[in-house]
Amino acid sequence: MDDKSDLIRIAARATRALITDCFAAAGLPQDDAARCAALMTEADLTGADGHGIFRLPQYVRRLQAGGFNKRPNITVTKTAAATALVDGDNGMGHLVMSRAANEAIAIAREAGVSWVGVRRSNHAGPAGLYAEMPAARGLIGFYAAVANANHMAAWGGADLLLGTNPLAIGVPSGGRPLVFDMATSIVAYGTVKKYALRGLTMPEGWFVKPQTGEAITDPNKSGEGILLPMGEYKGSGLALMIGLLAGVLNGAAFGRDVVDFNADDDSETNTGHFIVAVDIARFVPLATFTAEVDRHQRDLRASARLPGVDQIRLPGDRRAECRSERMRDGVPIAAALVAQLDKLAAELKVKRLAER
Amino acid sequence: MDDKSDLIRIAARATRALITDCFAAAGLPQDDAARCAALMTEADLTGADGHGIFRLPQYVRRLQAGGFNKRPNITVTKTAAATALVDGDNGMGHLVMSRAANEAIAIAREAGVSWVGVRRSNHAGPAGLYAEMPAARGLIGFYAAVANANHMAAWGGADLLLGTNPLAIGVPSGGRPLVFDMATSIVAYGTVKKYALRGLTMPEGWFVKPQTGEAITDPNKSGEGILLPMGEYKGSGLALMIGLLAGVLNGAAFGRDVVDFNADDDSETNTGHFIVAVDIARFVPLATFTAEVDRHQRDLRASARLPGVDQIRLPGDRRAECRSERMRDGVPIAAALVAQLDKLAAELKVKRLAER
Repeated sequence: MDDKSDLIRIAARATRALITDCFAAAGLPQDDAARCAALMTEADLTGADGHGIFRLPQYVRRLQAGGFNKRPNITVTKTAAATALVDGDNGMGHLVMSRAANEAIAIAREAGVSWVGVRRSNHAGPAGLYAEMPAARGLIGFYAAVANANHMAAWGGADLLLGTNPLAIGVPSGGRPLVFDMATSIVAYGTVKKYALRGLTMPEGWFVKPQTGEAITDPNKSGEGILLPMGEYKGSGLALMIGLLAGVLNGAAFGRDVVDFNADDDSETNTGHFIVAVDIARFVPLATFTAEVDRHQRDLRASARLPGVDQIRLPGDRRAECRSERMRDGVPIAAALVAQLDKLAAELKVKRLAER
Repeated sequence: MDDKSDLIRIAARATRALITDCFAAAGLPQDDAARCAALMTEADLTGADGHGIFRLPQYVRRLQAGGFNKRPNITVTKTAAATALVDGDNGMGHLVMSRAANEAIAIAREAGVSWVGVRRSNHAGPAGLYAEMPAARGLIGFYAAVANANHMAAWGGADLLLGTNPLAIGVPSGGRPLVFDMATSIVAYGTVKKYALRGLTMPEGWFVKPQTGEAITDPNKSGEGILLPMGEYKGSGLALMIGLLAGVLNGAAFGRDVVDFNADDDSETNTGHFIVAVDIARFVPLATFTAEVDRHQRDLRASARLPGVDQIRLPGDRRAECRSERMRDGVPIAAALVAQLDKLAAELKVKRLAER
């Protein structure tokens, strides 16, 4: 990923405005368009490039094809003192999950902890966004989702029955929240899409051919292969458990029932997620917790390093560095994607990026 | 691990009786001795060999040295409708965690979900034991702990500041619960101890020398090395987050404050854990959930396999196979360990394994 010659820097203000206008032109209410654009721009700023403006053409296609409900009636059913089930009515995942996160925060403040399950939602971008929401308000956040396509198999298997089902945990600290965000695959699928867009070769160990087990290194052929799990059987087992907790528990899709939304613009995906929030003060005072989080972070950052390592990186460091660099220099977008976005802008009769 | 010539098969009934008698002789009340023995025997039966009778000499030393409180006053403080904090009063971890799991189940039945934090506990054996407790009673179980020694460093680091902090998730199915149990290290430390006991060589990629980053393959030299995390930075990040949630959130030890209980028999460890239980019926009917879990398991088991793979294994399969084989043939114990146990039995004036 070192060749940056094909990347064009665009101010986040401009990408966000383009996303908002495209969604509004495609029929989303203005507030919803702005909300989705803000979260997608946050993904772009924090380096989750597979979840930002990169997704705009696909999302617009889905809105136009009827794959997303533009005017969903998102409902929240409180099912016990500490649990709720959110029905997204097939709305944009960003809107459904924002609502679910707010509910999780409110319930946890009352009951100490909350578990909010979500059904009939859609792709909602990077997991870290939602784990961070409780953390930014002084609670612990815990989020997982069933991914919107099955790129993995069970460990040893050759059928695509598991997604890259991500898990994220956010905790408050004295400064910005500490957010851990991981896919259960060896690499996030968005990264593979970035490689394809930029014509780069993937390392061995990411994809294998189902018939022979041989490595696939051409990202354009990743669709013929199996994405390998993180940590061999561990990533596969964790992807299964997340599928049961975020999918099956909520009556949402998992396994054979997952709709590959990369290949289908109009079927309802019935995407499942869950979000848990924990009120820290029910265990230790919040100030004690954040001071300890800071102390442990300092300890780890100042610890000895292996030869050749110039810095210890903790969860969220790359996101934070990326965010400040991109706020300053703009979001790097592949030239091929800028061309796609210009075409989309013309179709929707909104201003192109260069005009913003 | 193929050389089995040094293993002696002992009936689980006999190992369990020896453990019970040794604990009672070392001063634990009879019921507590029996409870710990039952859980340690379950660890042995299910293949968690680093957590069963293997630990008996060490646990007895700790009891004798005052490192464990033999008569703890374990207290449960309900801190909100769905949260509780358990203070283990430095009792045996198995007793503290059994109490915490029961509390988590009871609260979840009322509030839909529970989050029970634990402080001042101790080493409690394999994570799967506790995730399985809610699952065996029709709830989802989610358990994590701060390990009792720091064998890992932050990714790229050379200071031992992180443990193998395990995570386990249990869900009910139509048959036995599906239990996923993983260490955040590339391999569980108990496995390393088994290799040492049996004089086996470890594969490269498990341990490196902090000074040079070179591989260590002699398990007896693992104490000089750094155990690598699962999935590179992912395992390291997850170990950190579990440390914050199971340790810091409960006012329990993490990072520099962790007591290496392999090298210390008398200091209080202030071990932290958490357990979450979820009442499935607050989301979907339990029968729907278990039927769907079974359907997805069947799908995965029947799916196509990569060349050279003769069976798709799901979380808990190895444990279940191991359990039935060992119930029938006995628990395999290294000859060196049997000798240690005979010596221990003589010291405590209880019957040796061969006499049971």
